[in-house]
Amino acid sequence: MRLIHRVDELRAALRDARECALVPTMGNLHDGHLALIERARRHGAPVVASIFVNPLQFGAGEDFERYPRTLAQDCARLADAGTDIVFAPDVGEMYPEPQTCVVLPPLADELCGAHRPGHFQGVATVVLKLFNMVAPRYAVFGKKDYQQCFILKAMVRQFNLPIELIVVDTQRAEDGLALSSRNAYLSPAQRAEAPRLYRVLREAAAQLERGCDAAGVVAAAEAELTAHGWQVDYVAVRAQAGLQPPTPDTRELVVLAAARLGTTRLIDNVEVVLPLHAG
Amino acid sequence: MRLIHRVDELRAALRDARECALVPTMGNLHDGHLALIERARRHGAPVVASIFVNPLQFGAGEDFERYPRTLAQDCARLADAGTDIVFAPDVGEMYPEPQTCVVLPPLADELCGAHRPGHFQGVATVVLKLFNMVAPRYAVFGKKDYQQCFILKAMVRQFNLPIELIVVDTQRAEDGLALSSRNAYLSPAQRAEAPRLYRVLREAAAQLERGCDAAGVVAAAEAELTAHGWQVDYVAVRAQAGLQPPTPDTRELVVLAAARLGTTRLIDNVEVVLPLHAG
Repeated sequence: MRLIHRVDELRAALRDARECALVPTMGNLHDGHLALIERARRHGAPVVASIFVNPLQFGAGEDFERYPRTLAQDCARLADAGTDIVFAPDVGEMYPEPQTCVVLPPLADELCGAHRPGHFQGVATVVLKLFNMVAPRYAVFGKKDYQQCFILKAMVRQFNLPIELIVVDTQRAEDGLALSSRNAYLSPAQRAEAPRLYRVLREAAAQLERGCDAAGVVAAAEAELTAHGWQVDYVAVRAQAGLQPPTPDTRELVVLAAARLGTTRLIDNVEVVLPLHAG
Repeated sequence: MRLIHRVDELRAALRDARECALVPTMGNLHDGHLALIERARRHGAPVVASIFVNPLQFGAGEDFERYPRTLAQDCARLADAGTDIVFAPDVGEMYPEPQTCVVLPPLADELCGAHRPGHFQGVATVVLKLFNMVAPRYAVFGKKDYQQCFILKAMVRQFNLPIELIVVDTQRAEDGLALSSRNAYLSPAQRAEAPRLYRVLREAAAQLERGCDAAGVVAAAEAELTAHGWQVDYVAVRAQAGLQPPTPDTRELVVLAAARLGTTRLIDNVEVVLPLHAG
């Protein structure tokens, strides 16, 4: 496995790679990331993992500074997982000049975007840059970041990028908590509480399947989280297609939530397909 | 020469083209465009000319509907000029879904952008799409669209596109008028008046070279155009690097203008490098 820090070196290494698969990450890797690498290996070669904590997608007061940087440990895990190239640029390599040209993606001000102004603009911009640096045939992302996947799929389609975006199911701890680098911020008590987020979303999905009204389901989910000490950014029921509020005819739904335990913000989502009789 | 309307057919035709040169146009070609094709042939092969009147870069009340569509005539001229492929998608092929993911480029609200809200966002977005469809090694633009060239160069750099952007000097009629498809809108009297725009810009550049103050130069240029029946959108002196208002140390300047004769909006620009003693 090669560790590359510079774009020109990366381009040289990939000059004749036509079936490259890219896994963009911010490092501090866990088993969720390794599932992305495993999937990437099934689709393309070489497998490139990028590690870059992207300042453009962090807002003021967010955790950009304290986000864990664990490059040596990440490289060891990526090598074990069969990664061919780790691309780990520094901020000056990624942004040699102020990034005055950016991607304005859809849904940038909704759901997580409503609570993280500029976040998805920063995500879409850095992912587009990585796509142009690596020129992958495949790019692999995790479904935990549901809105991010939706936005990046729209970007790939609408910018006519010759890339297939592959979404891998969320990897979870045994108690159901979605794997996330930010779980490391949790105190033991918060870690014990954290799996409630997924339980609440599954219960919401079950209620929707039984024909309950979305507004009532959302209110109940928010109430349960709040009652257990969470600060809820949002719980929302959306159509999987378009990620807009569902109409009475929408059967393919997703329940999404973002909520904080102390200063740690967790997100999760559960897809649900309503049975025909519920319509 | 092949005429291609569909993206998938274009991709198939270009599958193994590594040194492709792209000339994006809106059709209604004149000798200025043919100079771009000629330059493209010196740099890459195959040479692809795109013809697409892009609704995204026209504002309400602008000339999208009446912009001349002359595909057969354009193809004949492009074939004569040695073009290999003409790519002429219709609006549904370029925008099969609403374009909710767009490029937000720098300087989008300045100079021409101040008078054409959304114009440069539309230009940058469609050019990025064309770049991703064609995957050219070279892309050729005309210097008449000075701000456009500046913005697209910034996009190429900041999005890490593996493309070399080539800017070709403005082609002019014998009386100095910059060649433009929109010149065809001019009445004979307006056409006789139109060369004043370039004369005024050259005079402004000469005054700057002699050490005149930029604000006075701009005011004199605007006054002369207005006195001859032009509606002036702007005359501006900017630094070539950054396209911002110059500082007292800036020596490489450009004078840019946009002004209307009747309903026809013309633009032009003149670069000037101040002699050292003028600083």
